[in-house]
Amino acid sequence: MKKGVMRPGHIQLRVLDMQAALEHYVDLLGLIEMDRDAQGRVYLKGWTEIDRFSVVLREADEPGMDFLGFKVVDDATLCRLSEELAAFGCPVENLPAGELKGCGRRIRFEAPSGHCFELFAEKEQTGKWGVSEVNPEAWPRGLQGMKATRFDHCLLYGVELPETLRLFTEVLGFSLAEQVLDEAGRRVAQFLTVGMKAHDVAFIQHPEKGRFHHASFFLESWEDVLRAADLISMSGTSLDIGPTRHGLTHGKTIYFFDPSGNRNEVFCGGDYHYPDHPPVTWTADQLGKAIFYHDRQLNERFLTALT
Amino acid sequence: MKKGVMRPGHIQLRVLDMQAALEHYVDLLGLIEMDRDAQGRVYLKGWTEIDRFSVVLREADEPGMDFLGFKVVDDATLCRLSEELAAFGCPVENLPAGELKGCGRRIRFEAPSGHCFELFAEKEQTGKWGVSEVNPEAWPRGLQGMKATRFDHCLLYGVELPETLRLFTEVLGFSLAEQVLDEAGRRVAQFLTVGMKAHDVAFIQHPEKGRFHHASFFLESWEDVLRAADLISMSGTSLDIGPTRHGLTHGKTIYFFDPSGNRNEVFCGGDYHYPDHPPVTWTADQLGKAIFYHDRQLNERFLTALT
Amino acid sequence: MKKGVMRPGHIQLRVLDMQAALEHYVDLLGLIEMDRDAQGRVYLKGWTEIDRFSVVLREADEPGMDFLGFKVVDDATLCRLSEELAAFGCPVENLPAGELKGCGRRIRFEAPSGHCFELFAEKEQTGKWGVSEVNPEAWPRGLQGMKATRFDHCLLYGVELPETLRLFTEVLGFSLAEQVLDEAGRRVAQFLTVGMKAHDVAFIQHPEKGRFHHASFFLESWEDVLRAADLISMSGTSLDIGPTRHGLTHGKTIYFFDPSGNRNEVFCGGDYHYPDHPPVTWTADQLGKAIFYHDRQLNERFLTALT
Amino acid sequence: MKKGVMRPGHIQLRVLDMQAALEHYVDLLGLIEMDRDAQGRVYLKGWTEIDRFSVVLREADEPGMDFLGFKVVDDATLCRLSEELAAFGCPVENLPAGELKGCGRRIRFEAPSGHCFELFAEKEQTGKWGVSEVNPEAWPRGLQGMKATRFDHCLLYGVELPETLRLFTEVLGFSLAEQVLDEAGRRVAQFLTVGMKAHDVAFIQHPEKGRFHHASFFLESWEDVLRAADLISMSGTSLDIGPTRHGLTHGKTIYFFDPSGNRNEVFCGGDYHYPDHPPVTWTADQLGKAIFYHDRQLNERFLTALT
Repeated sequence: MKKGVMRPGHIQLRVLDMQAALEHYVDLLGLIEMDRDAQGRVYLKGWTEIDRFSVVLREADEPGMDFLGFKVVDDATLCRLSEELAAFGCPVENLPAGELKGCGRRIRFEAPSGHCFELFAEKEQTGKWGVSEVNPEAWPRGLQGMKATRFDHCLLYGVELPETLRLFTEVLGFSLAEQVLDEAGRRVAQFLTVGMKAHDVAFIQHPEKGRFHHASFFLESWEDVLRAADLISMSGTSLDIGPTRHGLTHGKTIYFFDPSGNRNEVFCGGDYHYPDHPPVTWTADQLGKAIFYHDRQLNERFLTALT
Repeated sequence: MKKGVMRPGHIQLRVLDMQAALEHYVDLLGLIEMDRDAQGRVYLKGWTEIDRFSVVLREADEPGMDFLGFKVVDDATLCRLSEELAAFGCPVENLPAGELKGCGRRIRFEAPSGHCFELFAEKEQTGKWGVSEVNPEAWPRGLQGMKATRFDHCLLYGVELPETLRLFTEVLGFSLAEQVLDEAGRRVAQFLTVGMKAHDVAFIQHPEKGRFHHASFFLESWEDVLRAADLISMSGTSLDIGPTRHGLTHGKTIYFFDPSGNRNEVFCGGDYHYPDHPPVTWTADQLGKAIFYHDRQLNERFLTALT
Repeated sequence: MKKGVMRPGHIQLRVLDMQAALEHYVDLLGLIEMDRDAQGRVYLKGWTEIDRFSVVLREADEPGMDFLGFKVVDDATLCRLSEELAAFGCPVENLPAGELKGCGRRIRFEAPSGHCFELFAEKEQTGKWGVSEVNPEAWPRGLQGMKATRFDHCLLYGVELPETLRLFTEVLGFSLAEQVLDEAGRRVAQFLTVGMKAHDVAFIQHPEKGRFHHASFFLESWEDVLRAADLISMSGTSLDIGPTRHGLTHGKTIYFFDPSGNRNEVFCGGDYHYPDHPPVTWTADQLGKAIFYHDRQLNERFLTALT
Repeated sequence: MKKGVMRPGHIQLRVLDMQAALEHYVDLLGLIEMDRDAQGRVYLKGWTEIDRFSVVLREADEPGMDFLGFKVVDDATLCRLSEELAAFGCPVENLPAGELKGCGRRIRFEAPSGHCFELFAEKEQTGKWGVSEVNPEAWPRGLQGMKATRFDHCLLYGVELPETLRLFTEVLGFSLAEQVLDEAGRRVAQFLTVGMKAHDVAFIQHPEKGRFHHASFFLESWEDVLRAADLISMSGTSLDIGPTRHGLTHGKTIYFFDPSGNRNEVFCGGDYHYPDHPPVTWTADQLGKAIFYHDRQLNERFLTALT
């Protein structure tokens, strides 16, 4: 948190059919529906999240990610980062408070990778869902499905990884936690963090700009990954791969698709990072093991099914 | 245990290279080397097994299973079953005590499926490995690798499933715990048990006689299945599939290959069975889900890689 | 299963207030309410149990156990065991089919320990709760609380352990799986099994006849024991001890009380037993560790709080 | 990390007998011995820690904590914080580079609570123990005992909690993550963090200055907490309490004592914190549940056994 950016605060996803999406994100993943707005967008969160929402679903003709927003510590930081972004060459668009219900003003910019990001300093805090703020129980009764605890990170496919890295580290204060280097030493994957997690956002080199690989949600345990896998089967949800472990970050994971074709991950564990840690490096000849630690080979779908 | 057959007591496997096999079964699976004999066979067991050994490795030019032996309650039972087997049309071969070191006399017969089975009543009991018989600790220090607790069951591919079922149920007192039925109601898989486990031996219909699909070893927990998966990756062992869950038996599992190409499974959990329980039925149109509950599709290798 | 006795089939417990008891056994333990009868008794089961019920609650002025019933393989066995019980000195009382709804005729007798036991051969089979008999999912949606999978065993305090052991082994075909011996070699605890479990019923030497220590229910995993512990706290249920492990059987466990003061256990894991296994012995000087493996000391309550 | 303090970097503990201490911290906890110095101090670390060491053992006549050191991002931060500490009223002592082997210069100060703390910016980085920096496996072979992954935090008993809180938040940039308030609204426990963890250091109000309650080490899973409990029993180690869960932080935990009487904790899980999160509050009337979530009552030893 060198520059005042704290964490991924929200993601807006496009879904083809809102009702089907809610059955997926609420009934299956276990996110909590918190609100809806006049545009028909639906606001969700994981039960451990203090802020009012972290996932916004928007009905559209194409799936994918509209934007990923990071929360910063205060409005002064927002002002300063707005200037630094412009100086870097990423002029920001200003969105007024309330454009997302319960969220303060946001500044939006496009990274060199072709993805749209936002920063904001204020969002209504409703506290953890289902537990008291005083003497809170360990977890709330009434959680559904996978009981996802929080929106955790995204993996994005796009262009211009070096400039994107420079933007995230120099302007936004992220650290490079993990990377994949090809034989020529070029970085083909970069996992960036602004806290102790192994990644808050990650990028994989890809010829197209601004593609979305997956949104990831955090679970408590490997047992919860099994329950998630069981629920994927019971509900007839399209599985990508898992349960398995990643080499990169060493998280324990399962991938699957929402009804619109957006990939989701639920995972647990994973390495921790501090800013003085050198990045963990995987070499491209071990890319299969880096991605799927047990299988040690990529499936084509993982590389090409993007939204 | 209607007819005095208690459990799978040993399996003899053919391996191409004994040293490589021991690195696999001892260092990786965590079986304990208990003895060797003049023929060069090596005797192993899981640490919880009371009897002296349960896995016998024999160096040979072809991988596969030589025989699977069941322990019966006493010698009188052995005599009686010898006659009943002959009456069924499976004449027995008598093997003298000591042919397997520490094991009493065995009777051997070929089932209609084309596999070789044995019965025996006596085997030296050395107790659980590494824990005292009085005031035993929860587990022994010094276990290696996957810490497999016991040899659990086999899956065999072969012919004549109906006659094999009749032999195992009518003569040997097994129950049909689980089955797969095709559209015509023919049984294409039968899971048989002689205790509370979901299977002590299982058969899948196959045009060739006497083929070996896998030998399975029991682990304590889903966390141990993850550790097994990690060790498979770390040791460069050939993975078949997993970690995953089965539909049949609902066990949590991972499959992999020994250096000779024999398939192994380590698993935990799984349904329990009593003799008054009707068999659990899966239909062949759901065979993918029956075998791999999460993926819901078979890989070709699972059906064809046999030894 | 040497004599045709298969398993503990039901237990009838006395509760002071039925509504409070149901909140405990259904909402907290997660047993399924299956039926009620004209006497006001309520019939429950764990979701994996094939038979119609396994726990019967009866409202009464005193808590405790009315009887523990074992299912046998068929009516012929019931007839034979009736005679053998009488010959042993335990004349049986005959209860007609239907006295427990959905249960066939039962024979009832008092063991030397002072406890009332029953045998029965027939009970309506309703199958596992919430999953199909064909292509069954791994577990049903809609389970509550601790999601107890089955009624597993009882621990009883009473007199005349040697005669009780002789009854259970010689007449009913149980094995002595585990025992505690005092300095003089007298058996002060005996854990008896009729299947592969470490105990189907256990007895601890006690100066009073026929006391009830606890009824135990099986969980899937150590993670489920944690969930049970969390729920005990959240629901304000009276905790006895745990989460912990036993030395005897090595099961992972937690003890607590129902609103009437009957002790319950939920546990997972535990050793397995075959009839040829010598009993596991703990010595009385290690009794603390035998009961509570981690604490290594008994609490007074465990020895004296009985119903 | 508002002021450049990153994390707890090391703790120096006094032990009565070094050999016994090493059997405890190395063989039982599974810390790695990294070095020794001319004073006879022994340097340890958890396997995931990048820096050379995190635990220093010093043989002495009394057990307890000599100091707890935090790592800051760079030497400029060290200079600035040195001035700010002095301005706050905590003049610093300067310790030269190398006084701890492999560690840069440190500044030391006494907090109002009566405990000795240090800051440092440089320590030799040896990387994770037992895994490669490139293409690292999920975990190293050869870990011992509890396989503690890292030194995580301390709980300290002392005086002047309000001034200590002011020092840690205003000067060092910590957040108040969790607290216990008595009936009068006075803070009797404060859990402070400088990253995403629920606590990096915690204080409980106590009439004596500078007392040490426990040093805590992080495990991967609840299953690892069970293994730790088993090892505590097998090794005859003095157990304090557990396995259980905390109300505060909701971590899953077990407490025990080293041979010198210093309390240790190993734990997993626990809530996460961001600087914009309001502190979680427990009220003193629920202190039992706040500390031991399942038992819901304190044992006297937890409050009084200090070093």
